Order: sequence, then structure tokens, then C-alpha cells
Amino acid sequence: MIPGGIPGHTTPAATIPGAVPYFAAQGHGCRYRDVDGNEFIDFMGGYGPLVLGYHHPEVEAAADAARRLGAAFNHPTSILVELAEKLTDRIDFADWAVFAKNGADLTTWSLMVAREVTGRPKILKIRGAYHGSHAWCTPGHGGLIPEDRAHIHDFPFNDVAALESLFVRHRGQIAGLILTPFHHPAFADSVLPTREFVAAANRLCREHGVLQILDDVRCGFRLSIDGSHSVYGYTPDLAVYCKALANGHSISACVGRSAHKAAASRVFLTGSYWNDPAPMAAALATLDIIERDRIPEKLATTGRRFVDAFLSLGQKHGVPLVASGPPAMPYVRVADDSSFVRTQALCAAAIAHGVFLHPHHNWFISAAMTESDIDDALTRLDYALGTLPAPTADASRP
Amino acid sequence: MIPGGIPGHTTPAATIPGAVPYFAAQGHGCRYRDVDGNEFIDFMGGYGPLVLGYHHPEVEAAADAARRLGAAFNHPTSILVELAEKLTDRIDFADWAVFAKNGADLTTWSLMVAREVTGRPKILKIRGAYHGSHAWCTPGHGGLIPEDRAHIHDFPFNDVAALESLFVRHRGQIAGLILTPFHHPAFADSVLPTREFVAAANRLCREHGVLQILDDVRCGFRLSIDGSHSVYGYTPDLAVYCKALANGHSISACVGRSAHKAAASRVFLTGSYWNDPAPMAAALATLDIIERDRIPEKLATTGRRFVDAFLSLGQKHGVPLVASGPPAMPYVRVADDSSFVRTQALCAAAIAHGVFLHPHHNWFISAAMTESDIDDALTRLDYALGTLPAPTADASRP
Repeated sequence: MIPGGIPGHTTPAATIPGAVPYFAAQGHGCRYRDVDGNEFIDFMGGYGPLVLGYHHPEVEAAADAARRLGAAFNHPTSILVELAEKLTDRIDFADWAVFAKNGADLTTWSLMVAREVTGRPKILKIRGAYHGSHAWCTPGHGGLIPEDRAHIHDFPFNDVAALESLFVRHRGQIAGLILTPFHHPAFADSVLPTREFVAAANRLCREHGVLQILDDVRCGFRLSIDGSHSVYGYTPDLAVYCKALANGHSISACVGRSAHKAAASRVFLTGSYWNDPAPMAAALATLDIIERDRIPEKLATTGRRFVDAFLSLGQKHGVPLVASGPPAMPYVRVADDSSFVRTQALCAAAIAHGVFLHPHHNWFISAAMTESDIDDALTRLDYALGTLPAPTADASRP
Repeated sequence: MIPGGIPGHTTPAATIPGAVPYFAAQGHGCRYRDVDGNEFIDFMGGYGPLVLGYHHPEVEAAADAARRLGAAFNHPTSILVELAEKLTDRIDFADWAVFAKNGADLTTWSLMVAREVTGRPKILKIRGAYHGSHAWCTPGHGGLIPEDRAHIHDFPFNDVAALESLFVRHRGQIAGLILTPFHHPAFADSVLPTREFVAAANRLCREHGVLQILDDVRCGFRLSIDGSHSVYGYTPDLAVYCKALANGHSISACVGRSAHKAAASRVFLTGSYWNDPAPMAAALATLDIIERDRIPEKLATTGRRFVDAFLSLGQKHGVPLVASGPPAMPYVRVADDSSFVRTQALCAAAIAHGVFLHPHHNWFISAAMTESDIDDALTRLDYALGTLPAPTADASRP
């Protein structure tokens, strides 16, 4: 009685039908069990939110305390102000903040702010980048009409010439350039930005009076507690955060500059549950822990150790692996596997051995992973790799 | 550091700046306190969600139990299936259900489903009806481009001739007709549907192969546990629920017919936190209580008693009042007050005396209101009415 059985990004059809668990039952730290009692070391973390692991005691205590006060009031609580202060203190360019429930609530709103600021209609985006399931950016095909994307233009990531050519072709018509900090498409390797690309994006936005929007939904607070623009050198005007913000509690945030605050206040933004203090309290606690425990450094160290050892295991078993993306959000696939058939087989074997890996989406290292969890995962992956058939030529190769 | 100070529908600018509380602190049952320690009997309930009152013990226990299992998993939990079963059992025409966080997530998605089913672009809506803050329907003006509403056409509520004329003018181009069960605009009285309008909407949709979409976000489960279409006789193809669904926990639902299930599965729908079992558990508990305790009947009885007594108090004080909308969601204003100045003065006085009323948005009766709470509210309103200046001619009248 649910269209597609399980909808959206967690549909088994988007992973490996038959090989992945369909229904979760319980999570603790970096592990969860499915309804059949199978346990998995979790390298997806709910596709991002569980940066500190399931049911983190400090985050849950903060959310519970706020929840006991009430929910979804007629007015915000003072926690709204505390959280806005925390983000504007932390993010160097941020003078204000707004909050919603999901990343797409605010990536979409940020385009409207850019249009309101500039009085122009057009938005440039990276080809294949995911910014949510709204019509202007959904990776789906159903239900779209041409008007949904009449003013959306895309370019290949890191392609400075293509970006420049869009700025020239649509001169005076471009409201915003929306970027992810690095390119993390589905069904492809992750790609880090070149220095030339970042410099060109910054320069073109400045020269053309175009708002630079950083979709930091997936990466934010994983790579740096100061926002991912600080890692790569972007100079955003607006940035959207979501997944790592509140460790699984439903909240997203957009921050911006004072020059655009009046325009932002004219773009109506609201939702029935947006005054709920519990997710805001969870966000405050999560950000405190990320700062206190230097979570980005920890994720990078854990991720680097895991990926290096995993690649070595691949060599040992004669299964050449390719890693991409930053260590905190790695993606590993089988080399020479454009059909993803062998990568799916690898992930299916990993899942059968109790390690949840995704065959065509970047993974998320959890701060709840101890060295012993990583050792356990590697032992399981060693077994899993041993069950794979010997490599053959890539059937999908030309 | 927040654009507009407080954004969205709870901004004081949308009510009575200076007279309304700006920040809530704590809620219990049908009452809440602001950060200055003032207590209010709450006739808004978070603009709808708190149908059973703040921190309902059974709902919170169910949500807490689910929350302890984890949040925002890689997969849904079995609670997703239970909730879909509950809704499809309860709603007569519903064969399937999907879930999101806010009403607008699914009113917008429902348009895409209608477009996918019909292959047509156009949507008809009631003039002045609120369906969320997305660009196709926001009451705001900022950040819009003409393409956002290129295929949105509106008509005055209950105007059969205007509706028929749109169906004729756009024959073969109309995907969906989106309706609220009754018309509950801001800055105007609520209007119940005429039998002729409901019959015409049903007939025109059927004859033209247009999907009828019921935006039951605000009314759903308040007027009937079977969905508000059952109250007024609509025959929807899709219906969206949200506010009363989980008593303040962030979830919305869309249900539909099996004939449209395949198309619905092709319209991508997802969000980072949509697998979180806690709001789904809260929804199951809320729906159980609504059914067990016959909440719609209770809300109607409480609302009728309150509104009747309030109107009598108005007469006593020489302040003629006008009530509209169903008793569970009443709206009361001062008669002959097209500028809303006297209605704002009345609500400001009510708020000063500890009763939170909104001057230009329908109110929400809470199931947590006892007879004694209503008596208390009426006593306070008696005092409040006594503080109003004597009626004068409406300055805004022609």
C-alpha cells in the first residue's frame, strides 16, 4: 500500500533489490539491526544524518528536555535564537539564519532569495548534482512540466570554460549559482573541486552580481565545523545545512549575509512544525559535540584508515578497488565496472557479512565508529571479498 | 539575526505586533506560557498541530519508544507499514499512502502526481486558498518568477460558473483541481462549501478526467476521523493530511487510489528524515486517540459551546461579533470591521487577559480543553470585552 513499496532514496530498487535490508528495527552507535534480526555496521548513517551514531545520549537528552516543554508552538522558543547565534558565530560569512525541516526546503528557498535579491530568473547548477526532490532538481522524471526547469542551466563540475560560457550567454539574467562543496553524484565517483574551478566560481559570481549558494546539506560539519566552504575556498552568499546538523532530528538551516537579509525576509518561508524546539535543541547539542570532540578530524582519520585498509583487502583478493571523495565521506567501487554489476556484488557480499555499503552513493563515516568497529568491518569485508567470483572482463565495457 | 525577526506564519507582523507573545517557553494541555511567564489558553494550537494539547502523555510515550530505537534509518521501519495500513483502512477511497514532513511537501507532490497521471500541466485552485509556502502557492510575493504559476488558475470558492468556465477554457489541459474542504482564507471569514459546488467539483473532475486533490492539511481528522471529504461529500483522488496527524510531531501524509499508484511511484519523493519512526509512532497514537475518544465530536461540542457563549458576551458588551467556519475550527471577528482594526483590538485584549486568539486566521479548538478551561476563557474574554472602547463607525467602511 505504498507506491514503489518503499519510496524515495531508500528504495531497495536504488540499491540492490533482494540483497539489502528493507526495514530497519533498531540502531545503536554505528550499528543497526533489520526486522529479521541481522546486524550491520552502518556506513550510510541514514544517508547522512547519523553523524554521531544512533541515539547519541547527549543529543537525545537535549531533544527530550526540549520536547517536554512542548512542540510546534504558536511562536518560536528562545532556542531558535540560540541556534541562529551558534551558526552565525561559527560560519564566517553568516549574519543571519533561518530553519526548516529538510535540505530541499531551503535549497529551493535559497533560489527564491537569489531571484528576489537580483530580480533575475536564472539558476546555474552542476550537472548531476542532487539538491533535493523538488521539481527544479529532482533526479526523477515523473510529474515534471517544462516550466519547472525553464531557467535552470547546468554545467559539468570543474569545467571552468563551460561555467564561463553560461555566465556569458545568460549575462544579466543569472540570479544564483548553486554548488555542492565537492561533486557527489549517484552512480559515479565523487570529484573534489579544482582550485581553478573554485576561483572561477568566486570570481564570476562577484563580477556578475550573482549569488553563490553552497548546498552543504550532505557535507556540512563533516569536513569542517566552520562549513565546507572553508575547506575548499568558496565564498558563498548563502549556505544550506541539514544532514549532520542534528544527528537525525528533522531540521535544516540556511545562513546568509546581511546585505541580503531584507530580501530574504520578503521570501515567505514557513511550515507547520518549524517552531518545534526539540530538533533545534538537538542541533545545538550536535554542533557542541562536533566542536568539542573535533568530529571532522575524527571522521577523516577513521575514514582514511578504513578506506586504505579496504583498498589493500581488494588487492589481496584480486578485486581492484577505486576510492573517491574525502575520507569522511568516501565512495569505493570496483575498478573497471561501468555497469556497477561487480560493485553491487561487492556491496551485496558486504551486506551479507554485516557491513552496510551502498553500491552507487557516497558513504558516511560515523563518529561512533571505534577502531574496533573498523577492525570488525574490515574482517567482515575480508570474508566478503573472498566470496566474490574471480574478476572477469567488464561486460559493460565497449 | 533572523530575517524578519520571526519568519513565516508565526511572525508577529502577521498578527498584532506588540500585543502578541513573541517567544513561547512551555506548553501543557491547552495552555502555554511565553518567555515572560504570561500564560495563555491556546485557541491556535501551533496553528493546528496540537489537536490533543501540548505534550499528550500517550502520544509522547509512543514517540519516545520509537525514538529510542533510532532515527532516520537507511530504511523505513515497520511503523511505516502500520501507519499506511491505518490510513488506508480509515479513509474510504485510499488504497495507498506516502509520508513526508510538511503539508506543502505533499500538496506540491500531489500536483506532480496529477500531471504524471494525466500528462497535462494545469492546476485549478481556490482563489486565496493556502496550500503551503512553495512558489506555486505562497501568499508571499518575494522571489517568484512567472513560470512558477504559468499553469495555476484560480476561481472564487463556491463559484460553480467560474469553475465550469475554467474547465471549458482549459479543456484537455487540466491535471488537477486542488480544494480545501471548506474555504479558510486569512483576513476573511471561513466559508463552508455549498452542495452545488461540491457536486460540480465532483462531476467536472469525473467528466474531464481531472484528479481531485483534497488539501485536508488543516481540517483532516478534526471534522471526521474518516477525512473531511466524508463530511462535505467530495470524491477526492488524492488527499493530504498534516496538522492533526501526530499532535505536533513532524509528519504529513498523502493517500490515493490504486489507479494512480503506478504513476505516484514515478514521482520521486524523499527527504533526509522521512524514515524517522518517532513521528510515525506519534501519528499512530494520535489517530488511535482521535478514534477512541471521538475527538471530532468533542471538538465540535466544545467549539459550539465556546463560540455561542463568546457571541453572547459580545452582545452583552455591545461588540457585535461574527462567527464562521465549523465549530472545531471557528473564526470570530468583530462585525463591520473590514480593516480588522477592532478585531485586532479584541484579540489584543484577549491576549492581555490570557486567551490567545488570532485576529485574521481561523482558530483551532483543542481536545485538551475541559468545560472548566472554556469557562475560564469566557471569564477572561468577558473582562477583555469590557476593556474595549465603545463601538464607533468602521473607519475603513466606504
